[in-house]
Amino acid sequence: MIKCVYPGSFDPVTSGHLDIIERAAAMFDDVTVAVLVNKNKKPAFSAQQRMDFIKRSTTHLKGIQVDSFHGLLVDYMKKRDAQLIIRGLRAISDFEYEFQMAAMNAKLAKDVETVFLMTDISHSFLSSSMVKEIVSHGGDITGLVPEDIKNDVIKYFCR
Amino acid sequence: MIKCVYPGSFDPVTSGHLDIIERAAAMFDDVTVAVLVNKNKKPAFSAQQRMDFIKRSTTHLKGIQVDSFHGLLVDYMKKRDAQLIIRGLRAISDFEYEFQMAAMNAKLAKDVETVFLMTDISHSFLSSSMVKEIVSHGGDITGLVPEDIKNDVIKYFCR
Amino acid sequence: MIKCVYPGSFDPVTSGHLDIIERAAAMFDDVTVAVLVNKNKKPAFSAQQRMDFIKRSTTHLKGIQVDSFHGLLVDYMKKRDAQLIIRGLRAISDFEYEFQMAAMNAKLAKDVETVFLMTDISHSFLSSSMVKEIVSHGGDITGLVPEDIKNDVIKYFCR
Amino acid sequence: MIKCVYPGSFDPVTSGHLDIIERAAAMFDDVTVAVLVNKNKKPAFSAQQRMDFIKRSTTHLKGIQVDSFHGLLVDYMKKRDAQLIIRGLRAISDFEYEFQMAAMNAKLAKDVETVFLMTDISHSFLSSSMVKEIVSHGGDITGLVPEDIKNDVIKYFCR
Amino acid sequence: MIKCVYPGSFDPVTSGHLDIIERAAAMFDDVTVAVLVNKNKKPAFSAQQRMDFIKRSTTHLKGIQVDSFHGLLVDYMKKRDAQLIIRGLRAISDFEYEFQMAAMNAKLAKDVETVFLMTDISHSFLSSSMVKEIVSHGGDITGLVPEDIKNDVIKYFCR
Amino acid sequence: MIKCVYPGSFDPVTSGHLDIIERAAAMFDDVTVAVLVNKNKKPAFSAQQRMDFIKRSTTHLKGIQVDSFHGLLVDYMKKRDAQLIIRGLRAISDFEYEFQMAAMNAKLAKDVETVFLMTDISHSFLSSSMVKEIVSHGGDITGLVPEDIKNDVIKYFCR
Repeated sequence: MIKCVYPGSFDPVTSGHLDIIERAAAMFDDVTVAVLVNKNKKPAFSAQQRMDFIKRSTTHLKGIQVDSFHGLLVDYMKKRDAQLIIRGLRAISDFEYEFQMAAMNAKLAKDVETVFLMTDISHSFLSSSMVKEIVSHGGDITGLVPEDIKNDVIKYFCR
Repeated sequence: MIKCVYPGSFDPVTSGHLDIIERAAAMFDDVTVAVLVNKNKKPAFSAQQRMDFIKRSTTHLKGIQVDSFHGLLVDYMKKRDAQLIIRGLRAISDFEYEFQMAAMNAKLAKDVETVFLMTDISHSFLSSSMVKEIVSHGGDITGLVPEDIKNDVIKYFCR
Repeated sequence: MIKCVYPGSFDPVTSGHLDIIERAAAMFDDVTVAVLVNKNKKPAFSAQQRMDFIKRSTTHLKGIQVDSFHGLLVDYMKKRDAQLIIRGLRAISDFEYEFQMAAMNAKLAKDVETVFLMTDISHSFLSSSMVKEIVSHGGDITGLVPEDIKNDVIKYFCR
Repeated sequence: MIKCVYPGSFDPVTSGHLDIIERAAAMFDDVTVAVLVNKNKKPAFSAQQRMDFIKRSTTHLKGIQVDSFHGLLVDYMKKRDAQLIIRGLRAISDFEYEFQMAAMNAKLAKDVETVFLMTDISHSFLSSSMVKEIVSHGGDITGLVPEDIKNDVIKYFCR
Repeated sequence: MIKCVYPGSFDPVTSGHLDIIERAAAMFDDVTVAVLVNKNKKPAFSAQQRMDFIKRSTTHLKGIQVDSFHGLLVDYMKKRDAQLIIRGLRAISDFEYEFQMAAMNAKLAKDVETVFLMTDISHSFLSSSMVKEIVSHGGDITGLVPEDIKNDVIKYFCR
Repeated sequence: MIKCVYPGSFDPVTSGHLDIIERAAAMFDDVTVAVLVNKNKKPAFSAQQRMDFIKRSTTHLKGIQVDSFHGLLVDYMKKRDAQLIIRGLRAISDFEYEFQMAAMNAKLAKDVETVFLMTDISHSFLSSSMVKEIVSHGGDITGLVPEDIKNDVIKYFCR
C-alpha cells in the first residue's frame, strides 16, 4: 500500500488545505498530514495547536493521520516508510518553488515521488498568511478556514 | 481500485512520456495510456501507429493498457469508469494550459480528479514536436524517444 | 464623459465576457462592446450573430452599445472618439499578450489608455474556444455562456 | 461619482507611481493616493514624509487627495465610501501577488472593484526598493523619482 | 576567435532585432545574422528580401555577415564552424520557448553555447508579426523597423 | 579585450555557479568572479571564505580572477573598466528579477551590457540556500557543490 505525506506549515490550516486533504483521502488509503517545525520561523500557532486544528478539521475523513516533523522532508519520508509527497498547486501559485523542491527531493531520494493536486479554483487566492492578515485586522474569515477551527483562530488574534 | 487515464497525442511517444508512464505504473495498479484522436489535427502517425509505439515501449511494465479516444476526455473517463487523470508537468511547460484543462474537467465532471507528476528534469525540454523537427532534418534522436521505436520513427521521416 | 471600448472576438460571448461587461457598465457610463472582424480567421459565428448574442445577453444593462470593427483597434477608438480600452485578465491568462498589445496601442495612440479588470475567479478557466470544444462534443455548457444564448450555441454545433 | 483609491507603500513615491497617478487623474474625478502604514515593516520614510512627497509631486494634478491608512484595504474603502481600487501592473511585475490581493478583496467586499493600469514601459523595472538601493550607494536617481522630491530623498540617505 | 550566429525569421527585421545586432557587434568580432528558411511557413518576405533588409539596416556596423539557412540550427553552426548562438530576450517574451530551444541545442551539440541579450526595454513589445499587423492596416511603423527599410515594408503591404 | 564580471553572493559557490564560470571562461578571456558584500545580509560564510571557495573550485580554469565588492555593481564595473556582466539563468529561475536588474543597470551605465547564460538543466533546481538547508540537516550535498570544497561546507554546518 502506498503511504502518502502531505507536508506544510499549516499556520493555520485553511479551507484550501482541507480541500487537498479531502481529495488525497479519496485517492489514497494512507495519508499523513505532516506539520513542518522550522526553528528559524516564528509561527502564529505552536506545532501542537496546528496539529490539533488539522485533527478537528478532518474528523469526517478516514485514514488521515496527523504528525509533525523537523529536518529534511526526505528523511521524514524514510522514517515513515512513505513513498509519495502530496502538494497542492494553486492556479495563482508559487509554481516554480514547488518544482524546485520536487526536483531537489527527487535528487535526494530516488524512490520518493511528488504528486501535485490542483487546489479548487475558488481557493486559488488563499494562503495562511492572508488568513492571518485578515483576522488580525478584524476581517471576516468565514469560508477561509475550516468552520470547526474558525472561532479559535479568531480568538487567538483578538487576545 | 483507482483507475487512471494518461491522455495525450503521443505523436510519437517520447522518453518524457515514457518516464511519466513508468512512474504512474509504480504508483497505481490500473493505468490506461489513451491516444487522443482529433479530427482537426493532422498527426504524423496514425492512432494505430501511436498506440503500437506505446505498447512496444511499455512491455516491461505491468498493468498498462493502451487505448484511443475522441471527444471530451471526461466522457472517455466515464466510459472507462476511471477517476484519475494523469498529466506530466515539465518544469518548462504549458503550465497554464494544463490548469485550464484541469479546471474545466473538474467543472464538467465533479468526480474526476487530475494529478500532476513532474517530468524528470532531464526531459523538461522535450516534446513530440521537437522530436519531429529534429528527425525530419536528419538530427539524432537517441535518448529522445524510447529505444524500441527509434528506428521506426526515423524510417517514417526518411521516406 | 469617458467613452470605453471592450474589444474582442466573442465567438461566442461567454459568461466570463458578460461578467466583464457588467462590471464595466457599473463603472463607466458609455461602454461599447466591439466585435473584431478578422478576415484571416474563420469564426464559428458571423459578426452579425456574435453582435446579436451580445445584445441578447446585455438587455439588463444600461449604456451598453454593441458594434463591430476591422483594422487597428486604435483607429476604431479614434473613429468613436473613445479613450479607454477595457480588457479582462484571467488569473490563468495570456497576460503577456495583453501587455504587448497594450504597450503597442500606447505607442500607436498616446491618448488611448487600457484598463484591465480581473475576470471573476470562477470564470478564470473559461474561453470561447473551450466552449466550442465542449459543445461540439455534446458536453454541457450551462453556466459557461449566458443563459439567453445557450440554446442557439448548442443548436449551431448540432446541425 | 466613482471614488478611487490608489493604495501603496510609496517609500518613496517613484516616477512609475507618479505615472499611474497622472493617468488615474485623467480618467477619474476623485482619486485618493493612500499610504499604507504597516506596523510590521520599517519604512525608510515616515507616513507623514511619504504623504508629503506625494503631495509635492502632484501639485499639477486636479482632484488628487493624499491620505494614509492602516488595517485592511477593504475597510478603508468602506470608510471613504470608495468603490474602485487602482493598481499599477509592471510588465516586469508581481502579477500573481496583485491577482491574489484583488481576488481576496473581491471576496471580502463584493462592491469593491480593482482596475489595473499598465505602468509605462520605460518605468517597468522601477521600484521603491531599487531607488533606495541606488541612492544609498550614491547612484544617480534622476528620472527615477519625481524631480520635486529628488533632493530630499538623496539628503535622507546621505545623513 | 569566437564565431557567433544570430538566427531568426526576420520577416521583416525590426528595430528590436537591430538593437540586438548592434549590441552583439559591439561584443563579438564575427557575427552572422542567419535567416531561417522554413518550408512549412509562408513568410511575407522571401529569404532574399529578408537578407537584403538586414544588409541595408547594418551598413553602419563592422563584422556583420548576413546569410540564410534551413534545417537544424546546430547543423548550420557546425557548417560555419561557429560556437555561439545569440538570442534576444524581451522582458515581455517567449522565455520558455527560448529555454526549450537552448536546452535542446545543448543536447544536440555539446560545444555550442547560447547567450541571451536583453532587448532594450523600449522594444520589449515589438515583434515582426505586430509590425505586419500594423502596416497591413495602414498604421504608422516609424521606429518599429529600421528607417532604411521602412518604405519598402510599407510598399509591400500596400500593393 | 572584453572584461567580464560574474557577480553574486556565492554563499557558498554551487556546482551550478561553477558550470556558469566554466562556460564563461570558454567564451571570454578575462572573467572576474565578484563576491557581493552586503552589510544588510548575514551570509553563512565570510567574503574571504567565499572567495577562497571559488578560487579552490576554479584552479583548472585559465583567466579567472576572484574579487569582492560592495555598493552598486555598475560602480564596480567602472572601477575594473569592465563592460560585460554575466548572469546565469535557471530554467526554474528568478527571471523577472534578473531582467529588472539588467534594465536598471542599463539605465545607470549605458556602456555596460548583461549577457545571460542558461544554467545546465541538471542544475536548474540548485541554489546556495538549498545547499545550506540540506547540509544543515545532515543531507548529502555530493554533486551540489564543487568536490574541492564539499568537506569544508559540511564541516562548517556541523560545528
